Amino acid sequence: MPVQESHASSPATADNGGENQDEAWVWAQIKAEARRDAESEPALASYLYSTVISHSSLARSISFHLGNKLCSSTLLSTLLYDLFLNTFSSDPSLRSATVADLRAARCRDPACMSFSQCLLNYKGFLALQAHRVAHKLWVQNRKPIAFALHSRVSDVFSVDIHPAARIGKGVLLDHATGLVIGETAVVGNNVSILHHVTLGGTGKAGGDRHPKIGDGVLIGAGATILGNVRIGEGAKIGSGTVVLIEVPPWTTAVGNPARLVGGKEQPTVHEDVPGESMDHTSFISQWSDYII
Amino acid sequence: MPVQESHASSPATADNGGENQDEAWVWAQIKAEARRDAESEPALASYLYSTVISHSSLARSISFHLGNKLCSSTLLSTLLYDLFLNTFSSDPSLRSATVADLRAARCRDPACMSFSQCLLNYKGFLALQAHRVAHKLWVQNRKPIAFALHSRVSDVFSVDIHPAARIGKGVLLDHATGLVIGETAVVGNNVSILHHVTLGGTGKAGGDRHPKIGDGVLIGAGATILGNVRIGEGAKIGSGTVVLIEVPPWTTAVGNPARLVGGKEQPTVHEDVPGESMDHTSFISQWSDYII
Amino acid sequence: MPVQESHASSPATADNGGENQDEAWVWAQIKAEARRDAESEPALASYLYSTVISHSSLARSISFHLGNKLCSSTLLSTLLYDLFLNTFSSDPSLRSATVADLRAARCRDPACMSFSQCLLNYKGFLALQAHRVAHKLWVQNRKPIAFALHSRVSDVFSVDIHPAARIGKGVLLDHATGLVIGETAVVGNNVSILHHVTLGGTGKAGGDRHPKIGDGVLIGAGATILGNVRIGEGAKIGSGTVVLIEVPPWTTAVGNPARLVGGKEQPTVHEDVPGESMDHTSFISQWSDYII
Amino acid sequence: MPVQESHASSPATADNGGENQDEAWVWAQIKAEARRDAESEPALASYLYSTVISHSSLARSISFHLGNKLCSSTLLSTLLYDLFLNTFSSDPSLRSATVADLRAARCRDPACMSFSQCLLNYKGFLALQAHRVAHKLWVQNRKPIAFALHSRVSDVFSVDIHPAARIGKGVLLDHATGLVIGETAVVGNNVSILHHVTLGGTGKAGGDRHPKIGDGVLIGAGATILGNVRIGEGAKIGSGTVVLIEVPPWTTAVGNPARLVGGKEQPTVHEDVPGESMDHTSFISQWSDYII
Amino acid sequence: MPVQESHASSPATADNGGENQDEAWVWAQIKAEARRDAESEPALASYLYSTVISHSSLARSISFHLGNKLCSSTLLSTLLYDLFLNTFSSDPSLRSATVADLRAARCRDPACMSFSQCLLNYKGFLALQAHRVAHKLWVQNRKPIAFALHSRVSDVFSVDIHPAARIGKGVLLDHATGLVIGETAVVGNNVSILHHVTLGGTGKAGGDRHPKIGDGVLIGAGATILGNVRIGEGAKIGSGTVVLIEVPPWTTAVGNPARLVGGKEQPTVHEDVPGESMDHTSFISQWSDYII
Amino acid sequence: MPVQESHASSPATADNGGENQDEAWVWAQIKAEARRDAESEPALASYLYSTVISHSSLARSISFHLGNKLCSSTLLSTLLYDLFLNTFSSDPSLRSATVADLRAARCRDPACMSFSQCLLNYKGFLALQAHRVAHKLWVQNRKPIAFALHSRVSDVFSVDIHPAARIGKGVLLDHATGLVIGETAVVGNNVSILHHVTLGGTGKAGGDRHPKIGDGVLIGAGATILGNVRIGEGAKIGSGTVVLIEVPPWTTAVGNPARLVGGKEQPTVHEDVPGESMDHTSFISQWSDYII
Repeated sequence: MPVQESHASSPATADNGGENQDEAWVWAQIKAEARRDAESEPALASYLYSTVISHSSLARSISFHLGNKLCSSTLLSTLLYDLFLNTFSSDPSLRSATVADLRAARCRDPACMSFSQCLLNYKGFLALQAHRVAHKLWVQNRKPIAFALHSRVSDVFSVDIHPAARIGKGVLLDHATGLVIGETAVVGNNVSILHHVTLGGTGKAGGDRHPKIGDGVLIGAGATILGNVRIGEGAKIGSGTVVLIEVPPWTTAVGNPARLVGGKEQPTVHEDVPGESMDHTSFISQWSDYII
Repeated sequence: MPVQESHASSPATADNGGENQDEAWVWAQIKAEARRDAESEPALASYLYSTVISHSSLARSISFHLGNKLCSSTLLSTLLYDLFLNTFSSDPSLRSATVADLRAARCRDPACMSFSQCLLNYKGFLALQAHRVAHKLWVQNRKPIAFALHSRVSDVFSVDIHPAARIGKGVLLDHATGLVIGETAVVGNNVSILHHVTLGGTGKAGGDRHPKIGDGVLIGAGATILGNVRIGEGAKIGSGTVVLIEVPPWTTAVGNPARLVGGKEQPTVHEDVPGESMDHTSFISQWSDYII
Repeated sequence: MPVQESHASSPATADNGGENQDEAWVWAQIKAEARRDAESEPALASYLYSTVISHSSLARSISFHLGNKLCSSTLLSTLLYDLFLNTFSSDPSLRSATVADLRAARCRDPACMSFSQCLLNYKGFLALQAHRVAHKLWVQNRKPIAFALHSRVSDVFSVDIHPAARIGKGVLLDHATGLVIGETAVVGNNVSILHHVTLGGTGKAGGDRHPKIGDGVLIGAGATILGNVRIGEGAKIGSGTVVLIEVPPWTTAVGNPARLVGGKEQPTVHEDVPGESMDHTSFISQWSDYII
Repeated sequence: MPVQESHASSPATADNGGENQDEAWVWAQIKAEARRDAESEPALASYLYSTVISHSSLARSISFHLGNKLCSSTLLSTLLYDLFLNTFSSDPSLRSATVADLRAARCRDPACMSFSQCLLNYKGFLALQAHRVAHKLWVQNRKPIAFALHSRVSDVFSVDIHPAARIGKGVLLDHATGLVIGETAVVGNNVSILHHVTLGGTGKAGGDRHPKIGDGVLIGAGATILGNVRIGEGAKIGSGTVVLIEVPPWTTAVGNPARLVGGKEQPTVHEDVPGESMDHTSFISQWSDYII
Repeated sequence: MPVQESHASSPATADNGGENQDEAWVWAQIKAEARRDAESEPALASYLYSTVISHSSLARSISFHLGNKLCSSTLLSTLLYDLFLNTFSSDPSLRSATVADLRAARCRDPACMSFSQCLLNYKGFLALQAHRVAHKLWVQNRKPIAFALHSRVSDVFSVDIHPAARIGKGVLLDHATGLVIGETAVVGNNVSILHHVTLGGTGKAGGDRHPKIGDGVLIGAGATILGNVRIGEGAKIGSGTVVLIEVPPWTTAVGNPARLVGGKEQPTVHEDVPGESMDHTSFISQWSDYII
Repeated sequence: MPVQESHASSPATADNGGENQDEAWVWAQIKAEARRDAESEPALASYLYSTVISHSSLARSISFHLGNKLCSSTLLSTLLYDLFLNTFSSDPSLRSATVADLRAARCRDPACMSFSQCLLNYKGFLALQAHRVAHKLWVQNRKPIAFALHSRVSDVFSVDIHPAARIGKGVLLDHATGLVIGETAVVGNNVSILHHVTLGGTGKAGGDRHPKIGDGVLIGAGATILGNVRIGEGAKIGSGTVVLIEVPPWTTAVGNPARLVGGKEQPTVHEDVPGESMDHTSFISQWSDYII
C-alpha cells in the first residue's frame, strides 16, 4: 500500500525523537501565530496570552484551554487543568495524536488558516483531545471521571463520544456539532467526519454493537451508520446517508437507505484518499450518475 | 392490551405510597453509587458530594444539579435552584416521572451503568427534567419564566422542547443533542427518542400543528416528523426517516420520504415494545427486505 | 417583481429616518413587554431589568445580552460588551438588520409571542446578531477576533456560521441548533432556515465553494446543501433533503438525493413567499404527489 | 431599671405574635423602599429585584444576599443559601434578632436612611447575621461548617467574630471593618460597636478569656479590650482606648491605657443609653475635662 | 502662600488643554510600563493586556479594572463598567483628579515604582477613584446606586468612604485598609492619609458632624479624628493619635488624646508640605522631644 | 541561648529528611482531620474534598486553596495555581516554613483546634504563604507578578505585606486583618503578630526604613512600629502601642507613645518566649504597674 507507506515514512513520525521535534515545531508555529494576532488585535491579546503565549508547552496550553472551556461551578478549572496536564504529560502518544489532529485540520479544511485557529476555535479538535484524555482514563478503569468529562464535552461542544470509543490519529471532526460515536465504535487514522454524524448501536443489547471505520474514510454531514458494520479503508459516505450495511474499501455509499456507488480503485497518490482529500466532488458526480 | 396492563399493575406505581417507596429506593441507589465512586476517584469526590451525597432527597440533588448547569450570569443558580426545588417538592407526579425516566435510561441504554451516571451525565435526562418543570410553569400561566428555562436548556444541552409540549413518563432521550419538539406535540409513555429528532410543525399557522407520538414508540436518530400526524402505539421510525404521514400502531416507517414496512402485530411480551427494546435490529432487516 | 417592490416600499425602510423610527418602535415594544413580564413574574424581574429594561437602546440591550451569553473565563463579558456595542453603534445597517430579524421571528414563527421573547430566548436570532458583528469584523480584516466570536457562538448556541458568510436581512433561523453555514455561502433577504441545516462545501479546495441562497427561500429541518449551487428565489427545500444541484426559483426540492417538484409560479401575494409563509403544507402535498 | 423595662414592654417584643408582626412590618418597609429605588434607578433595579423584591420573606432575602456575598468557587452560593435559609426558617429568635439589628442601624446611625440600605449595604449588619447562623451551627456542634462561615465572613467583610461568641439583639456594628471578637466574648443587647474594635484574649491559655460587654455599651473606633474583664451596663469606651480592666456601669473609659472618667449616673430616658444614643459628644467633653 | 501658588501655576493644571495633555502623558507612561512588564513576565501578560494595554484611554482602563474588581454575582461587571465609563467620560475634572492621585502615589510613596503599579495594585487609589464616581452619583441625587458602590468598595477594599464626603485632588490613601471617612467630612488637596484612619462623627445627631482636613495634611496610620473639627493646612497627625480638637495649620498632633507639638512655620519649599513629604521623621523627633 | 538551641535541635528541623518527614506527618494529620469533618458534615464534604482530601501533597492543597481564594476575573485560578505549585514544588524551604507556620497556629492559638482549621480558614496563615511565594518571585526579580499577588492578598485578606519584606519561620499572624508590613521590614522566627499591626516607614525617602523584629517577639493588636528601629529578641509590644524607638530584648513596650516596662530577663524555658507563649497576661500586670 503505497499510500500508507509514504505516510509512515514521513520524517516527523519516523521515531519518537521525530515526534518530539514535530510537536516542538507545531508549538513554535502556534506561538508565533498567536503573537502575530496579539499584536494586530489588542482586544484579543489577553486571551491569546493566557491561552497560548504564556505557556511553555502545547500540553499546558491545551490543558489550560480545555480546563477553562469544560469547567463548571461544580467541576473547577483547576481540577480539570490538573487532570488534562497530568494525562498529556505522561503519555507522548496522546501528544503526537494531538499534533496529527492539528495537521489534519490545517491540511484538509480550506477554512483553516493556521494551527492556532484550530487549537483555539475548533470544537471538533478540542472535543477530540478531551476524548483522548477521557479514553485514557477509561482504559485505566477510572470510569466515573471519564463519564464526567464525556458529559462536559457533550454539554459544551455538543459532541458526544463515548469514552470507550477508540479513535485513531490525524482525525478531523469538521464543524462537529451533533457528532455521536458509540461505546464500541472504532475509528481509524486519517479519517474525516463532518457534523451531525452518528456511529450508533442498534438496540438494547450490549456487546460489540457500533461501526468500525477504516483508515482514510470520509463521512459526510448528517450521515448515520448503525450497528457493528465495517466501513472499509478509503470509503466515502455521502451526506445524509443512512448506512446499515458493510461498505467495502474505496467505495462510496449514498442515499437513505445507503446504496453503494463508484469503484473500488485504490488511489496511487496519498492526497487522493477520501479522508484526506475531503473530496465530495467526485462523490457528487458518482451520485448524479446514480440518480439519472 | 396486556402490555399496558402489566405495566400499570407494577407495584411501584400502584399507589402513591408505592411511588414514594420507588423514589426512596432509587435515591438510595444513587447515593450508594456516588459514595462508591467518590471513594474510588478522589478527584471526583467534591463533585459527587456537592451534587449528590450532601443532599437529603432526589429532588434537592436534581434541583442543585440543574441550577448549576443552567445558571448564567443573569439567571443565578440560587434563583433556579429555588424554582426547581419548589416545583419538584410540590408535585409528586413530577418526581415519579423523574424516577420513571431514570429507570428508562438504566434499562434501555446498554451504555448506562448506574442511576447516578444518568442523573449526573445524561443531557437528555436533565433536559427532560428541566422541561417537566418548565411545562408545569407553563400550565400555571407563568410563560415568561417557562420560556427562560426553555432557552437555557436549548443553550446548555442543545435540546429544544417547547414548554407547552406534553411528554409522558419513562421517556428516554438518548444522546439528545439537537432534539426539537414543538409546541403542540404530545409524547406518550415509555417512548425512546434518539438525537437530532424533530417533532415539528408545518408552517406559519398556529393551532394544533405538531406530531402526536403514541406509547412505546421508538424514533431513530435524525428522524423528522412534521405536522399534526399520529404515530401509533409501538411504531418504529427509522433513523433519518422523514415522516409527513400517519404511522399506524406497531408499524415501522423508514426512508425519506417515509415508507411503511413491517406488520402490525402487537408484541405479547412487554420487553418487545420498540420504545423499550430499543430494537433497531428487526427494523434493519425489515428495511433490507424493503430495499431489495 | 411585485413582491420585492412592495417590500422595498414599506415605510419603515424607505429611508434612514424610517429605519430609526422602526428601531425605536420595536425597542419601545420590547421594553413594554419586559416591564409587563417583570410585573407578573418577580422571579424573572432581575433578569428582565438587567438585560432589557435598564438599557437605553436596543443596541445596548443586545450587546449586554450577547456579552453575558458568549463570555467565558478567558473572554470577559466587558470586552465582548464593548466590542458588540461599538460595532452596533457605528453601523445603522446592522441595527436595521437586527430589527428585520426580530420582525421575521415575530411574523413567521407561530410560537413567537412577543419581540422580547425573541430577543431574550431565540438562539437563532442571537447567533445571527453575533454573526453580523463577526462578519463586520471580518470585513475589517480583524479575522482573529471574528474567529473567536464564531467559536463562542458555535460553543454556546451550536450555530456555526463562518464569519465570512454574507447573510441578508429579515432572516429567521428557527430552533437553529446544528446550523452550519460555510465561508463563501450567501443567504438572501427574508429567508427562513430551520435547524440542522448545512450550507456546506465539497472538498479540500478553497475558493467559492458554498451555496448561494436566493431571497425568500425556505429550507426545512436537516436539509443539506453542498457546493457552489444556486437555490433560486422563493424555492423550498424539504426537510432532510440533500441538495447537490441548482434549484430554480419558486421550485421545491425534496428527498435524498433531491428531486425537484412543484411548479415555477411566482406568488402574487407577498405573504406567499416560502421564506415568509413558512408553508410546509403545500410542499407536503407536492411531495405526496411525487411519492405516489 | 426603667430603661430596660420600657424596652421590654415595647409591643413588638411582647410575645411571639408581636415579633412576627414586627418582622412583617419591617419586611414590608424594605420591599417598598427597594421598589421605590428600583423605579428611580433602573441600573440598580436588577440587583434590587434579585436581592429583595423577588423574595417572599426577609429570611429568604437575607439568605440569598449572604449566599451571594459569601460564596466562593469552592463554597457555592446554592449551598450557603440553603444553609442560611434552613437556619433562619427554623429559629424565630434569629429572625427577631435580625429585625432588632435592622432597627438599631436605622435609629442610631444618622447616615442610615432606610432599612433596605442597611440590609443591602452594611457589612456590619450582614456579618452579624452570618455570625448568628454560624453561632447556631456551633451550638449544634457543627463546628467545621461554623468555622468555614467564620472564615468567609472574615475574608469578605473583614469582620472576625468567633462562632462561639454570644451576641445580643439590637446590636449595631458600625462600619465594622477590622472588628475582632474572641471565642468566649459575650456582648449584651443594644450595644453599639464601631470599627477596628478588638474584644481579645490575653494569651495562650484556653478557657474563659475574653471580655463581657454589658447591655447598652458604646465602644468607640479602634478600642481594644483584652481579657476576661467586665464592661458594665451603659459604659462608654472611647475611641482608641486600650482597656485591660473592669469598667463599671455607666462609666466612661478613655486613653491608652484606659482611665475611667465621668459619673455613674444611669439615664432616666431610654434614648440616653450610650449604646443607643451613639453620643460621643458627652464623652468628648468628659475627656476634654480629663485632659485638662 | 507660595506653596499653593507654585502648585497652581504648574503647567499641567494651567488650563483644560494642559490637563488633557497631562492625562495623555500619564496614560502613555502606563501603557509603556505595562508593555514592558508583559514582555518580561508572560504569566502576567494576559492580565496586563486585558486591564491596560488593550484600552484606548485611561478612563476605559480604570473603568474596566474597577468593574472587574467591584463586580459581584448580583452587580455585574458590565453594568459597573458602563457606570464608571459614562461618569469618567462625561467629567474631565474627575479624570484630572485621577491623574493627580496617580502622581501623588508615584511621588510620595517610595515603594511605588511606576504609575501602572499604582493603577493596578493600590487599593487606596482604586477605592478613591470608585468614591469619586460614587460621589458624583450622590451629587446627582442617585443615592441608592452611590450606596451600592460604597458598599462594594467597603467589601472589596476595606475602605469605607461615605459617598457624600468631599475629597480633593492629589490625595494619597496609602495602604488604605480600614480607612473610614464619614458623610460630612471634607478632605483638601494634596493630603496623604495612611491606613486605619477614621474621620468620624460623634453621635446620633445628623448634620455637619465630621472633620474638615486642610490642604497638605499628613495623617498617620491608625489616627482617629472625631467630630466637626478643623485640621489646618499642613498639619501632621501622628500615628495612633486620637484627635477631638481643632489642630492649627502647620502643627503636629500626637498621642491619645492628642497633644499639639511642633511650631506653626509654613514651609517655603513645596516639597516640605507634610502631605507631600510624607515626612514622619520630623514628627518623630518632635514627639521624642515631647515625650522627654 | 538555650531557647534557640533547644529549638534548633528539634528533630524535625535537624536535616532535610527530618523536614520532609515533618511535612508528611502534618499533611497526614490534615487529611485525616478533613476526612473526619467530611463525614460528620456532608454539607462541607465537597469543599473538603476539593481543597484537601483530593490532593496528593500539602503543596498542591495550599496551591489549590490560594489559587481559588486569590483569583479574580482577570487573574485566573489556573494561572495562580500553577504559579503557587511551581514555587512550592521547587523550594523545600518554603514548604518547611509553611509547616512551621501551621505548627505555630496550632500551638499558640487556643482557638485553633486542628491543622486543617488553620490551613482552610486562617487568613493570616494563608496571606503569609502567599507572601512567601511573592517574596520568592521578588527575589527572582519578577516584581510585577509579585506586586500582583501582593495586591490580591491585600484585597482578599486585608493583609498588606510588601513582597520584599523578609519574614522568618514559625510566624503566627493572628486574626491578621489590617496588618501592614513595609518593604524593608524584617521579621524573625517564632514571632506572633496580632491584627491591625503596622511595621511602617517614616516618610518619602527610600532605603532601609522599616522595623526589624527579632526572634520570639510578640506584637499586640493595633500596635504601630515606625521607622528602621530594632525590636529586640523576645520583646513584647503591647496592644495599641506606638513605637518609634528601639526596644531592647526581653523588654515590654506599652502606650502611645511607647514606654518601656518590665525587665530584661531571658526565659529559661522555651515556652516562655513571648512570641510563643502569647502571654499578654504578664504584660498586663506590667502595664498595670506602670499605670499606677
